[in-house]
Amino acid sequence: MTSLTKKPRTLKVALLQETDRGSRDANLDAIEAGLREAAAAGAGLVLLQELHNGPYFCQHESVDEFDRAEPIPGPSTARIGALAETLKLVVVASLFERRTAGLYHNTAVVFDRSREIAGIYRKMHIPDDPAFYEKFYFTPGDIGFEPIDTSVGRLGLLVCWDQWYPEAARLMALAGAELLLYPTAIGWDPNDADEEKQRQRDAWIIVQRGHAVANGLPLLACNRTGFEAAPDGGRGIQFWGSSLVAGPQGEMLASAGVGARELLVADVDLARSESVRRIWPFLRDRRIDAYDDLLRRFRD
Amino acid sequence: MTSLTKKPRTLKVALLQETDRGSRDANLDAIEAGLREAAAAGAGLVLLQELHNGPYFCQHESVDEFDRAEPIPGPSTARIGALAETLKLVVVASLFERRTAGLYHNTAVVFDRSREIAGIYRKMHIPDDPAFYEKFYFTPGDIGFEPIDTSVGRLGLLVCWDQWYPEAARLMALAGAELLLYPTAIGWDPNDADEEKQRQRDAWIIVQRGHAVANGLPLLACNRTGFEAAPDGGRGIQFWGSSLVAGPQGEMLASAGVGARELLVADVDLARSESVRRIWPFLRDRRIDAYDDLLRRFRD
Repeated sequence: MTSLTKKPRTLKVALLQETDRGSRDANLDAIEAGLREAAAAGAGLVLLQELHNGPYFCQHESVDEFDRAEPIPGPSTARIGALAETLKLVVVASLFERRTAGLYHNTAVVFDRSREIAGIYRKMHIPDDPAFYEKFYFTPGDIGFEPIDTSVGRLGLLVCWDQWYPEAARLMALAGAELLLYPTAIGWDPNDADEEKQRQRDAWIIVQRGHAVANGLPLLACNRTGFEAAPDGGRGIQFWGSSLVAGPQGEMLASAGVGARELLVADVDLARSESVRRIWPFLRDRRIDAYDDLLRRFRD
Repeated sequence: MTSLTKKPRTLKVALLQETDRGSRDANLDAIEAGLREAAAAGAGLVLLQELHNGPYFCQHESVDEFDRAEPIPGPSTARIGALAETLKLVVVASLFERRTAGLYHNTAVVFDRSREIAGIYRKMHIPDDPAFYEKFYFTPGDIGFEPIDTSVGRLGLLVCWDQWYPEAARLMALAGAELLLYPTAIGWDPNDADEEKQRQRDAWIIVQRGHAVANGLPLLACNRTGFEAAPDGGRGIQFWGSSLVAGPQGEMLASAGVGARELLVADVDLARSESVRRIWPFLRDRRIDAYDDLLRRFRD
């Protein structure tokens, strides 16, 4: 027997793990440099971190921070889109979207080797914890869990807090996503003990590798790095980097360090999901007749 | 502020990772010895491996193997229940249940320091892969994902193949389970390459630790160990042991080796889920308005 579906289909991916450079222009300059470096390295897809245009402003609640938002399409999509076209890259960007006055989203945008927008994803699960006051800024996404088709494959694009939800990854897999992608901005409270810090970072890595396993899909997560002080005199956040590329058995293909800017490049074989799902056909055996209560808040 | 909910509530658990001893009586003798050892070590709960009364007979399809099945309650529940009562243990057993002629299940049984059965769980997700021909033997469970209340807590009991399904763990968490438990029997095809073997074992560990993280729950998995030859001249299975205890951030609390019988004992603080879920309140933010398609086979 011959099988076209088992022929390797290698995609070189690049994840640009960055610090905040202090202004939108400086950040977009760093992103432009990173995209050029990724293209020179032969990458076909580049994943940027969450809200890469500025600091992680959700450390406090201030109406002035809404000034950072912009429409989609808008000036940032114009600049990044032009680079995607020039450099012949699929680029996954992450922006603070102003949809109208008083209506904002945390939105990821995909370009497919073109200045045109191939698709957007509006973050569905919105956190709200000390130093991560996102519910103040972002209306939960209203376009659901819909993958975005590109020339390199069907992208199951999710954002940060979504990465803790197996439901999100599964819905993308069920819609035929070939790759799970997470722009993210997560870090430590500097006051936490070292053991707690290690548990948190490990948990973040494990839960995502778990989504890769459960769905037989490769997974990319691009996280922010560097310390960002709190605007209100809080403790600030030490973003933990650790951007990663996992294969469809959750195996680590590449991972970045904790504390520095890094362009993480890895080869992902998109065809391996076919063989992995043949030995572990989890989708075959889902008990959809018994899952109704997944739609409930709690079974009480 | 004082909080009763954050006071430690430590449960000493024991996982009895065993080989097949060649007969039901020999296996139950080994289980009796293990339960006595666990009780002497101060354990309050003992988890046994999947189908612990015999070999993993699903390596082939043979009508004669149905002779191994027994009713519940039946002789094995009588013997194990008596030990649970005598030794004052919560015991989680795993049996081949004969419900009637031509209707069999892979069923886990809980005893709560009593010879009475506290509850059963019938394996919901049934695998069928080369050397794991379970669809021939086991009718998929028809009592759903319902935790079992015991004196040591509400047990989210699942079995083996269920461990690959985030849906199963989530449904138990939503029903108030305080602990996820998996009797299991998984191993390697001896012909697989070492790297593939490592990926498979790692994936099995990762996906389960991921359930612990996603649900903020501790998790126990008790796996079989030892090589079992195939009755039909196949390659046999090298069960990989590696039984594990994880905490509610997916942190490893204890893990057994690959190749030998082991009684794995660990302390689990059931109260830690409260504090972990306060910093990571995933249940708060589930998008139950957007999860409908989890009830579909595929979104095509």
